[in-house]
Amino acid sequence: MQRIAIIGTGLIGASVGLALKAGGFRGTILGWDTSAAELAEALRLGAIDEALPNREAVLTPQLADVILLATPVLAVMDWMQRLAPVVGAGQLLTDVGSTKREIAALAATLYGGARQAAFLPGHPMAGKESGGAALADASLFRGATWLFTPLTPTATTLDAGWRALVEGFGAHTLDLTPQRHDELCAWVSHLPQMLATALSALLEETFAEDAEGAAALHRIGGRALREATRLGASPYSMWRDVALTNTEPIAATLLALEQQLAHLRENLRTPELREEFAAANRFRDGAGKGR
Amino acid sequence: MQRIAIIGTGLIGASVGLALKAGGFRGTILGWDTSAAELAEALRLGAIDEALPNREAVLTPQLADVILLATPVLAVMDWMQRLAPVVGAGQLLTDVGSTKREIAALAATLYGGARQAAFLPGHPMAGKESGGAALADASLFRGATWLFTPLTPTATTLDAGWRALVEGFGAHTLDLTPQRHDELCAWVSHLPQMLATALSALLEETFAEDAEGAAALHRIGGRALREATRLGASPYSMWRDVALTNTEPIAATLLALEQQLAHLRENLRTPELREEFAAANRFRDGAGKGR
Repeated sequence: MQRIAIIGTGLIGASVGLALKAGGFRGTILGWDTSAAELAEALRLGAIDEALPNREAVLTPQLADVILLATPVLAVMDWMQRLAPVVGAGQLLTDVGSTKREIAALAATLYGGARQAAFLPGHPMAGKESGGAALADASLFRGATWLFTPLTPTATTLDAGWRALVEGFGAHTLDLTPQRHDELCAWVSHLPQMLATALSALLEETFAEDAEGAAALHRIGGRALREATRLGASPYSMWRDVALTNTEPIAATLLALEQQLAHLRENLRTPELREEFAAANRFRDGAGKGR
Repeated sequence: MQRIAIIGTGLIGASVGLALKAGGFRGTILGWDTSAAELAEALRLGAIDEALPNREAVLTPQLADVILLATPVLAVMDWMQRLAPVVGAGQLLTDVGSTKREIAALAATLYGGARQAAFLPGHPMAGKESGGAALADASLFRGATWLFTPLTPTATTLDAGWRALVEGFGAHTLDLTPQRHDELCAWVSHLPQMLATALSALLEETFAEDAEGAAALHRIGGRALREATRLGASPYSMWRDVALTNTEPIAATLLALEQQLAHLRENLRTPELREEFAAANRFRDGAGKGR
């Protein structure tokens, strides 16, 4: 792998560029972003070696050995459609999209054939509540899990090359089916995000007409409030695509949580509250032991 | 103030003892805890100078100038009843209970008269998800807000003395009415706790029969899952009293959140999701600016 193109040089894309350099990658890293500012920042940070001049340049035949799509999910799928006619055997496309069922299904129709480029759907479980190349970090993936939902059980040489680079970032890789990926990510990522958004929005609305209360809220709120609302800062632009491409699993986790909260509310004064705390304690014990 | 008695030498009580010592308090600190282990640990750490020999010793007339009740809320109220006949003018009782309406109402009937001891209801907004004297920390209250819900608007000399000690711990003090305290704390503390308990219990129950899924959940879950469930480790013993003495405000915040989650769930594919994220973003902006 001599040339890698990163499409989308925001937080994740630029961090991959920095991690490649930190891991000793000696080839050339090309970059493209629809935001000229993000692209310039990635170049300035050394996350990419060369900025592509325009959107059309991404469609150059034989642009790179690996093309990493590091954009929100719908843009990943848009690039998959546009790139399919111009890439071919010997090239690998991979992505970092937050949901995998729709991407994997589309990939199966456009990639992986004898004369087609390969596609390896991926998803690093790393990020920050704010995006942008300026926050990029070569160590962002250290200790994180990088999920893959491969189209076929047998890994190609290209797959293996990209996996080796990812492990060089300090990440652990784990393969899941796209369905399992999206269901598990609904629990560990999408539900916590929607919860933080709902709680933050509720607090904003509840105290909209009560400036004194809002000030006291921020003043007395400690770590519990800060942690419960931190992800309220997350951008709609990214999460819209997650909500659109994983609607049913997210809706199912939200409904289950609504019912759990109602059950707890109805039992604030009964011994059933003890059972809820006991189950929660067991979950945290399991987390501590890594199961 | 020469003698201070700390009733309940767990995390908060023992941390107060250590903070008093660190702040230069030169008097004697007495301690009592129903758990012999907690009491011994507090003595070993130097959080108290002397361990009372038994429960009855707490009721010794003129035991101390200040008696700090550092137990869960129902035990605070129990001690308030038991101490009222044996304490008198010139003595101050104060507490660290998580809810204040019931404590303040009881205090008004038992304390504050001409020949009675004074009572200053208090609540430091500090803690950890696990309790116990072993985790006590002299700097636990540094930068935290210590709330008071005084029985009368005019502070006595005794009140002022205790407030000065609290400020010596590095805490900021803020006075609220008991009603306002309990409503605000429902939002910033009790709701985040119940939410973490409900989510942790839900995950425990959902993956009870799916060991592989549970393992993957803990493996791929990052900071979002960790923060959303951290308080799932909190003990029922303390939160039972909070739920019993602040039922209506907690139930109201839970119901409001259930409705907000349902609204978000019904709008995962509509432009209304943008409004939810925008309101959440505004809340976080306000938090960052401290309003």
